[in-house]
Amino acid sequence: MVETKRFKVKTKAGTDLVNITDLVSEAIAGAKIKDGVVVIFVPGSTASISTIEYEPNLVGDVNNALERIIPSDIEYEHHKTWGDYNGVSHVRATLNGPGITVPFADRRLMLGTWQQIVLMDFDTRARDREIILQIMGD
Amino acid sequence: MVETKRFKVKTKAGTDLVNITDLVSEAIAGAKIKDGVVVIFVPGSTASISTIEYEPNLVGDVNNALERIIPSDIEYEHHKTWGDYNGVSHVRATLNGPGITVPFADRRLMLGTWQQIVLMDFDTRARDREIILQIMGD
Amino acid sequence: MVETKRFKVKTKAGTDLVNITDLVSEAIAGAKIKDGVVVIFVPGSTASISTIEYEPNLVGDVNNALERIIPSDIEYEHHKTWGDYNGVSHVRATLNGPGITVPFADRRLMLGTWQQIVLMDFDTRARDREIILQIMGD
Repeated sequence: MVETKRFKVKTKAGTDLVNITDLVSEAIAGAKIKDGVVVIFVPGSTASISTIEYEPNLVGDVNNALERIIPSDIEYEHHKTWGDYNGVSHVRATLNGPGITVPFADRRLMLGTWQQIVLMDFDTRARDREIILQIMGD
Repeated sequence: MVETKRFKVKTKAGTDLVNITDLVSEAIAGAKIKDGVVVIFVPGSTASISTIEYEPNLVGDVNNALERIIPSDIEYEHHKTWGDYNGVSHVRATLNGPGITVPFADRRLMLGTWQQIVLMDFDTRARDREIILQIMGD
Repeated sequence: MVETKRFKVKTKAGTDLVNITDLVSEAIAGAKIKDGVVVIFVPGSTASISTIEYEPNLVGDVNNALERIIPSDIEYEHHKTWGDYNGVSHVRATLNGPGITVPFADRRLMLGTWQQIVLMDFDTRARDREIILQIMGD
Protein backbone atom coordinates (compact mmCIF):
# COMPACT_ATOMS: atom_id res chain seq x y z
CA MET A 1 0.00 0.00 0.00
CA VAL A 2 1.17 3.55 -0.79
CA GLU A 3 0.06 6.86 0.66
CA THR A 4 1.39 10.27 -0.38
CA LYS A 5 1.35 13.28 1.95
CA ARG A 6 2.89 16.70 1.53
CA PHE A 7 3.55 19.75 3.66
CA LYS A 8 5.15 23.15 3.27
CA VAL A 9 7.97 24.63 5.36
CA LYS A 10 9.12 28.25 5.27
CA THR A 11 12.91 28.58 5.47
CA LYS A 12 15.24 31.55 5.90
CA ALA A 13 17.99 32.67 3.52
CA GLY A 14 21.32 30.90 4.10
CA THR A 15 21.70 27.42 5.57
CA ASP A 16 18.59 26.95 7.70
CA LEU A 17 17.95 23.76 9.69
CA VAL A 18 14.26 23.25 10.49
CA ASN A 19 12.93 20.55 12.82
CA ILE A 20 10.16 18.77 10.86
CA THR A 21 9.74 15.81 13.25
CA ASP A 22 6.27 16.85 14.45
CA LEU A 23 5.00 17.34 10.89
CA VAL A 24 6.21 13.87 9.89
CA SER A 25 4.97 12.24 13.12
CA GLU A 26 1.50 13.72 12.71
CA ALA A 27 1.32 12.55 9.09
CA ILE A 28 2.23 9.01 10.17
CA ALA A 29 -0.19 9.10 13.15
CA GLY A 30 -3.01 9.98 10.74
CA ALA A 31 -2.05 7.53 7.96
CA LYS A 32 -4.07 4.52 6.80
CA ILE A 33 -0.84 2.50 6.74
CA LYS A 34 0.01 1.19 10.22
CA ASP A 35 3.49 -0.33 9.75
CA GLY A 36 6.17 0.43 7.19
CA VAL A 37 8.55 3.16 6.10
CA VAL A 38 8.22 6.82 5.21
CA VAL A 39 10.44 8.23 2.48
CA ILE A 40 10.99 11.92 3.31
CA PHE A 41 12.03 13.64 0.10
CA VAL A 42 12.68 17.26 -0.81
CA PRO A 43 12.11 18.08 -4.48
CA GLY A 44 14.76 20.65 -5.37
CA SER A 45 18.53 20.74 -5.70
CA THR A 46 19.52 23.05 -2.82
CA ALA A 47 18.16 21.22 0.24
CA SER A 48 18.57 17.90 2.08
CA ILE A 49 16.98 15.86 4.87
CA SER A 50 18.78 14.16 7.77
CA THR A 51 18.41 13.49 11.49
CA ILE A 52 19.96 15.42 14.38
CA GLU A 53 19.62 16.04 18.08
CA TYR A 54 17.82 19.29 17.40
CA GLU A 55 19.17 21.88 19.86
CA PRO A 56 20.50 25.35 18.92
CA ASN A 57 24.16 24.79 19.82
CA LEU A 58 24.40 21.64 17.72
CA VAL A 59 22.55 23.33 14.87
CA GLY A 60 25.28 25.99 15.04
CA ASP A 61 27.97 23.28 15.00
CA VAL A 62 26.53 21.74 11.82
CA ASN A 63 26.48 25.19 10.23
CA ASN A 64 30.10 25.79 11.23
CA ALA A 65 31.16 22.37 9.95
CA LEU A 66 29.47 22.96 6.58
CA GLU A 67 31.18 26.37 6.37
CA ARG A 68 34.57 24.65 6.81
CA ILE A 69 33.82 21.71 4.50
CA ILE A 70 31.92 23.50 1.70
CA PRO A 71 32.59 27.23 2.25
CA SER A 72 30.15 29.91 1.17
CA ASP A 73 32.84 32.58 0.67
CA ILE A 74 34.66 31.00 -2.28
CA GLU A 75 33.87 31.22 -5.98
CA TYR A 76 31.74 28.52 -7.65
CA GLU A 77 31.70 27.83 -11.40
CA HIS A 78 27.92 27.45 -11.23
CA HIS A 79 27.66 31.25 -10.78
CA LYS A 80 28.68 31.67 -14.43
CA THR A 81 25.66 29.61 -15.53
CA TRP A 82 22.79 31.53 -13.97
CA GLY A 83 24.35 34.32 -11.92
CA ASP A 84 22.29 33.31 -8.88
CA TYR A 85 25.33 32.80 -6.59
CA ASN A 86 24.04 29.68 -4.88
CA GLY A 87 26.76 27.25 -5.98
CA VAL A 88 27.50 26.50 -2.35
CA SER A 89 23.84 25.52 -1.77
CA HIS A 90 23.88 23.05 -4.65
CA VAL A 91 27.17 21.41 -3.65
CA ARG A 92 25.96 20.98 -0.05
CA ALA A 93 22.68 19.44 -1.26
CA THR A 94 24.32 16.99 -3.68
CA LEU A 95 26.83 15.78 -1.10
CA ASN A 96 24.13 15.36 1.57
CA GLY A 97 21.45 13.75 -0.62
CA PRO A 98 17.75 14.50 -1.23
CA GLY A 99 16.04 12.47 1.47
CA ILE A 100 15.99 9.75 4.09
CA THR A 101 13.81 6.71 4.87
CA VAL A 102 12.51 6.19 8.40
CA PRO A 103 10.76 3.01 9.65
CA PHE A 104 7.59 3.15 11.73
CA ALA A 105 5.35 0.70 13.62
CA ASP A 106 1.84 1.23 15.02
CA ARG A 107 1.89 4.66 13.35
CA ARG A 108 4.92 5.78 15.40
CA LEU A 109 8.34 6.67 13.96
CA MET A 110 11.15 4.42 15.27
CA LEU A 111 13.47 7.32 16.10
CA GLY A 112 15.95 7.45 18.96
CA THR A 113 15.10 9.52 22.04
CA TRP A 114 17.38 12.39 20.98
CA GLN A 115 16.90 12.01 17.23
CA GLN A 116 14.84 14.52 15.28
CA ILE A 117 14.18 14.81 11.54
CA VAL A 118 15.67 17.95 10.05
CA LEU A 119 15.17 19.80 6.77
CA MET A 120 18.50 21.38 5.84
CA ASP A 121 17.78 24.20 3.40
CA PHE A 122 21.06 25.46 1.96
CA ASP A 123 19.63 28.06 -0.43
CA THR A 124 20.87 31.65 -0.32
CA ARG A 125 17.32 33.00 -0.39
CA ALA A 126 14.23 32.35 1.75
CA ARG A 127 12.11 29.49 0.39
CA ASP A 128 8.66 27.97 0.77
CA ARG A 129 9.70 24.30 0.59
CA GLU A 130 7.45 21.40 -0.23
CA ILE A 131 8.31 18.12 1.51
CA ILE A 132 6.97 14.86 0.07
CA LEU A 133 6.19 11.90 2.33
CA GLN A 134 5.82 8.64 0.46
CA ILE A 135 4.43 6.18 3.00
CA MET A 136 4.72 2.47 2.17
CA GLY A 137 3.58 -0.56 4.16
CA ASP A 138 0.57 -2.47 5.50
CA MET B 1 4.46 -5.31 -5.29
CA VAL B 2 8.13 -5.36 -6.30
CA GLU B 3 9.74 -4.91 -9.71
CA THR B 4 13.47 -5.09 -10.40
CA LYS B 5 15.07 -3.30 -13.35
CA ARG B 6 18.73 -2.84 -14.23
CA PHE B 7 20.75 -0.79 -16.67
CA LYS B 8 24.41 -0.29 -17.50
CA VAL B 9 26.32 3.03 -17.59
CA LYS B 10 29.81 3.52 -18.99
CA THR B 11 31.91 5.89 -16.87
CA LYS B 12 35.31 7.52 -17.38
CA ALA B 13 38.37 7.13 -15.15
CA GLY B 14 38.45 9.60 -12.24
CA THR B 15 35.38 11.10 -10.59
CA ASP B 16 32.72 11.04 -13.32
CA LEU B 17 29.19 12.37 -12.75
CA VAL B 18 26.67 10.89 -15.17
CA ASN B 19 23.07 12.08 -15.52
CA ILE B 20 20.90 8.93 -15.27
CA THR B 21 17.54 10.71 -14.91
CA ASP B 22 16.22 9.65 -18.32
CA LEU B 23 17.16 6.01 -17.73
CA VAL B 24 15.33 5.98 -14.39
CA SER B 25 12.33 7.95 -15.74
CA GLU B 26 11.90 5.54 -18.66
CA ALA B 27 12.09 2.53 -16.35
CA ILE B 28 9.36 4.03 -14.15
CA ALA B 29 7.24 5.06 -17.17
CA GLY B 30 7.29 1.41 -18.34
CA ALA B 31 6.77 -0.22 -14.93
CA LYS B 32 3.75 -2.25 -13.85
CA ILE B 33 3.77 -0.38 -10.54
CA LYS B 34 2.01 2.98 -10.86
CA ASP B 35 2.71 4.68 -7.50
CA GLY B 36 5.51 4.12 -5.03
CA VAL B 37 9.24 4.55 -4.64
CA VAL B 38 12.29 3.53 -6.61
CA VAL B 39 15.44 2.56 -4.75
CA ILE B 40 18.38 3.47 -7.02
CA PHE B 41 21.33 1.39 -5.87
CA VAL B 42 24.86 0.94 -7.19
CA PRO B 43 26.46 -2.40 -6.30
CA GLY B 44 30.13 -1.65 -5.72
CA SER B 45 32.21 0.25 -3.21
CA THR B 46 33.61 3.12 -5.34
CA ALA B 47 30.43 4.87 -6.56
CA SER B 48 27.37 6.70 -5.19
CA ILE B 49 24.01 8.10 -6.30
CA SER B 50 22.60 11.55 -5.51
CA THR B 51 20.64 14.38 -7.12
CA ILE B 52 22.00 17.57 -8.67
CA GLU B 53 21.09 20.38 -11.03
CA TYR B 54 23.01 18.69 -13.82
CA GLU B 55 24.92 21.40 -15.68
CA PRO B 56 28.68 21.33 -16.48
CA ASN B 57 29.78 24.20 -14.22
CA LEU B 58 28.08 22.72 -11.16
CA VAL B 59 29.44 19.26 -12.01
CA GLY B 60 32.88 20.93 -11.95
CA ASP B 61 32.09 22.53 -8.57
CA VAL B 62 31.20 19.15 -7.06
CA ASN B 63 34.45 17.71 -8.41
CA ASN B 64 36.42 20.63 -6.93
CA ALA B 65 34.65 20.30 -3.59
CA LEU B 66 35.40 16.55 -3.41
CA GLU B 67 39.05 17.27 -4.28
CA ARG B 68 39.22 19.66 -1.29
CA ILE B 69 37.27 17.42 1.11
CA ILE B 70 38.68 13.99 0.16
CA PRO B 71 41.81 14.72 -1.93
CA SER B 72 43.08 12.36 -4.61
CA ASP B 73 46.73 13.45 -4.24
CA ILE B 74 47.37 12.15 -0.72
CA GLU B 75 48.36 8.66 0.39
CA TYR B 76 45.70 6.14 1.49
CA GLU B 77 46.38 3.10 3.65
CA HIS B 78 44.13 1.05 1.37
CA HIS B 79 46.88 1.16 -1.28
CA LYS B 80 48.94 -1.22 0.86
CA THR B 81 46.15 -3.82 0.69
CA TRP B 82 45.70 -4.27 -3.05
CA GLY B 83 48.04 -1.76 -4.70
CA ASP B 84 45.18 -0.46 -6.86
CA TYR B 85 45.54 3.17 -5.71
CA ASN B 86 41.83 3.91 -5.47
CA GLY B 87 41.63 4.65 -1.74
CA VAL B 88 40.19 8.06 -2.55
CA SER B 89 37.37 6.42 -4.57
CA HIS B 90 36.39 4.16 -1.69
CA VAL B 91 36.40 6.93 0.93
CA ARG B 92 34.25 9.18 -1.29
CA ALA B 93 31.79 6.33 -1.88
CA THR B 94 31.47 5.37 1.78
CA LEU B 95 30.90 8.97 2.89
CA ASN B 96 28.30 9.58 0.13
CA GLY B 97 26.42 6.28 0.45
CA PRO B 98 25.37 3.61 -2.08
CA GLY B 99 21.98 4.87 -3.24
CA ILE B 100 18.90 7.05 -2.89
CA THR B 101 15.15 6.51 -2.81
CA VAL B 102 12.88 8.65 -5.02
CA PRO B 103 9.05 8.72 -4.81
CA PHE B 104 6.87 8.57 -7.92
CA ALA B 105 3.17 8.87 -8.77
CA ASP B 106 1.36 7.96 -12.00
CA ARG B 107 4.68 6.53 -13.24
CA ARG B 108 6.41 9.93 -12.96
CA LEU B 109 9.30 10.74 -10.62
CA MET B 110 8.50 13.48 -8.09
CA LEU B 111 11.70 15.43 -8.77
CA GLY B 112 12.09 19.20 -8.62
CA THR B 113 12.32 21.16 -11.87
CA TRP B 114 16.10 21.54 -11.64
CA GLN B 115 16.79 18.23 -9.94
CA GLN B 116 18.39 15.36 -11.83
CA ILE B 117 19.55 11.93 -10.64
CA VAL B 118 23.30 11.50 -10.87
CA LEU B 119 25.61 8.50 -10.75
CA MET B 120 28.85 9.62 -9.10
CA ASP B 121 31.54 7.14 -10.11
CA PHE B 122 34.69 7.84 -8.09
CA ASP B 123 36.83 5.00 -9.43
CA THR B 124 40.28 5.72 -10.84
CA ARG B 125 39.60 3.56 -13.91
CA ALA B 126 36.81 3.51 -16.50
CA ARG B 127 33.92 1.25 -15.50
CA ASP B 128 30.84 -0.39 -16.98
CA ARG B 129 28.50 0.17 -14.01
CA GLU B 130 25.33 -1.73 -13.30
CA ILE B 131 22.57 0.26 -11.62
CA ILE B 132 19.78 -1.59 -9.82
CA LEU B 133 16.28 -0.12 -9.60
CA GLN B 134 14.12 -1.78 -6.98
CA ILE B 135 10.61 -0.45 -7.60
CA MET B 136 8.08 -0.85 -4.78
CA GLY B 137 4.42 0.19 -4.64
CA ASP B 138 0.95 -0.44 -6.07
CA MET C 1 4.21 -6.88 3.29
CA VAL C 2 6.35 -5.57 6.14
CA GLU C 3 8.66 -7.43 8.53
CA THR C 4 10.64 -5.82 11.36
CA LYS C 5 13.85 -7.34 12.72
CA ARG C 6 16.36 -5.93 15.19
CA PHE C 7 19.81 -6.80 16.41
CA LYS C 8 22.35 -5.35 18.84
CA VAL C 9 25.96 -4.40 18.10
CA LYS C 10 28.58 -3.53 20.71
CA THR C 11 30.82 -0.64 19.62
CA LYS C 12 34.00 0.88 21.06
CA ALA C 13 34.50 4.48 22.19
CA GLY C 14 35.53 6.83 19.37
CA THR C 15 34.63 6.34 15.70
CA ASP C 16 34.15 2.59 15.34
CA LEU C 17 33.25 0.96 12.01
CA VAL C 18 31.61 -2.45 12.44
CA ASN C 19 30.87 -4.86 9.59
CA ILE C 20 27.18 -5.82 9.97
CA THR C 21 26.78 -7.53 6.58
CA ASP C 22 26.41 -11.05 8.00
CA LEU C 23 23.78 -9.93 10.52
CA VAL C 24 21.73 -8.27 7.77
CA SER C 25 22.24 -11.17 5.31
CA GLU C 26 21.07 -13.72 7.88
CA ALA C 27 17.99 -11.65 8.70
CA ILE C 28 17.09 -11.50 5.02
CA ALA C 29 17.85 -15.21 4.48
CA GLY C 30 15.37 -16.02 7.27
CA ALA C 31 12.67 -13.52 6.30
CA LYS C 32 9.15 -14.34 5.08
CA ILE C 33 9.56 -11.68 2.40
CA LYS C 34 11.46 -13.06 -0.62
CA ASP C 35 12.03 -9.96 -2.80
CA GLY C 36 12.18 -6.30 -1.85
CA VAL C 37 14.26 -3.82 0.09
CA VAL C 38 15.65 -3.64 3.60
CA VAL C 39 15.84 -0.27 5.32
CA ILE C 40 18.80 -0.43 7.73
CA PHE C 41 18.26 2.28 10.32
CA VAL C 42 20.11 3.26 13.48
CA PRO C 43 17.93 5.00 16.10
CA GLY C 44 20.20 7.60 17.71
CA SER C 45 21.94 10.79 16.70
CA THR C 46 25.63 9.78 16.88
CA ALA C 47 25.84 6.90 14.38
CA SER C 48 25.30 6.19 10.66
CA ILE C 49 25.09 3.29 8.20
CA SER C 50 26.87 3.02 4.84
CA THR C 51 28.67 0.50 2.64
CA ILE C 52 32.42 -0.05 2.32
CA GLU C 53 34.99 -2.58 1.18
CA TYR C 54 35.53 -3.67 4.75
CA GLU C 55 39.28 -4.16 5.24
CA PRO C 56 41.38 -2.61 8.07
CA ASN C 57 43.46 -0.23 5.96
CA LEU C 58 40.41 1.32 4.32
CA VAL C 59 38.62 1.51 7.67
CA GLY C 60 41.66 3.52 8.82
CA ASP C 61 41.42 5.76 5.76
CA VAL C 62 37.76 6.57 6.49
CA ASN C 63 38.72 7.39 10.08
CA ASN C 64 41.53 9.67 8.88
CA ALA C 65 39.25 11.37 6.36
CA LEU C 66 36.59 12.04 9.01
CA GLU C 67 39.30 13.44 11.31
CA ARG C 68 40.30 15.92 8.57
CA ILE C 69 36.72 16.79 7.52
CA ILE C 70 35.02 16.92 10.94
CA PRO C 71 37.88 17.03 13.51
CA SER C 72 37.52 15.65 17.01
CA ASP C 73 40.10 18.02 18.52
CA ILE C 74 38.20 21.31 18.04
CA GLU C 75 35.57 22.90 20.25
CA TYR C 76 31.86 22.29 19.55
CA GLU C 77 29.04 24.53 20.78
CA HIS C 78 27.03 21.41 21.66
CA HIS C 79 29.38 20.86 24.63
CA LYS C 80 27.81 23.87 26.34
CA THR C 81 24.39 22.18 26.22
CA TRP C 82 25.05 18.87 27.98
CA GLY C 83 28.78 18.83 28.74
CA ASP C 84 29.11 15.37 27.18
CA TYR C 85 31.80 16.42 24.66
CA ASN C 86 30.44 14.43 21.74
CA GLY C 87 29.69 17.34 19.38
CA VAL C 88 31.96 15.75 16.78
CA SER C 89 29.91 12.52 16.94
CA HIS C 90 26.65 14.35 16.29
CA VAL C 91 27.99 16.42 13.38
CA ARG C 92 29.44 13.30 11.71
CA ALA C 93 26.13 11.45 12.13
CA THR C 94 23.98 14.29 10.75
CA LEU C 95 26.19 14.76 7.69
CA ASN C 96 26.29 10.99 6.98
CA GLY C 97 22.61 10.23 7.59
CA PRO C 98 20.79 7.64 9.76
CA GLY C 99 20.47 4.70 7.37
CA ILE C 100 20.54 3.14 3.92
CA THR C 101 18.18 1.03 1.82
CA VAL C 102 19.49 -2.14 0.14
CA PRO C 103 17.56 -4.20 -2.46
CA PHE C 104 17.38 -8.00 -2.28
CA ALA C 105 16.03 -10.84 -4.43
CA ASP C 106 15.48 -14.50 -3.50
CA ARG C 107 16.43 -13.55 0.08
CA ARG C 108 19.92 -12.40 -0.99
CA LEU C 109 21.23 -8.85 -0.74
CA MET C 110 22.18 -7.31 -4.12
CA LEU C 111 25.56 -6.05 -2.92
CA GLY C 112 28.71 -5.79 -5.02
CA THR C 113 31.46 -8.38 -4.50
CA TRP C 114 33.60 -6.00 -2.42
CA GLN C 115 30.73 -4.12 -0.79
CA GLN C 116 29.89 -4.67 2.87
CA ILE C 117 27.34 -2.93 5.11
CA VAL C 118 28.97 -0.92 7.88
CA LEU C 119 27.69 0.61 11.11
CA MET C 120 29.67 3.80 11.72
CA ASP C 121 29.39 4.60 15.40
CA PHE C 122 30.86 8.05 16.04
CA ASP C 123 30.11 8.28 19.76
CA THR C 124 32.89 9.12 22.21
CA ARG C 125 31.85 6.29 24.55
CA ALA C 126 31.27 2.55 24.01
CA ARG C 127 27.68 1.75 23.05
CA ASP C 128 25.32 -1.18 22.78
CA ARG C 129 23.60 -0.14 19.52
CA GLU C 130 20.25 -1.36 18.30
CA ILE C 131 19.89 -1.64 14.53
CA ILE C 132 16.41 -1.75 13.01
CA LEU C 133 15.74 -3.66 9.78
CA GLN C 134 12.47 -2.75 8.15
CA ILE C 135 11.96 -5.33 5.39
CA MET C 136 9.43 -4.49 2.67
CA GLY C 137 8.37 -6.52 -0.35
CA ASP C 138 6.59 -9.66 -1.53
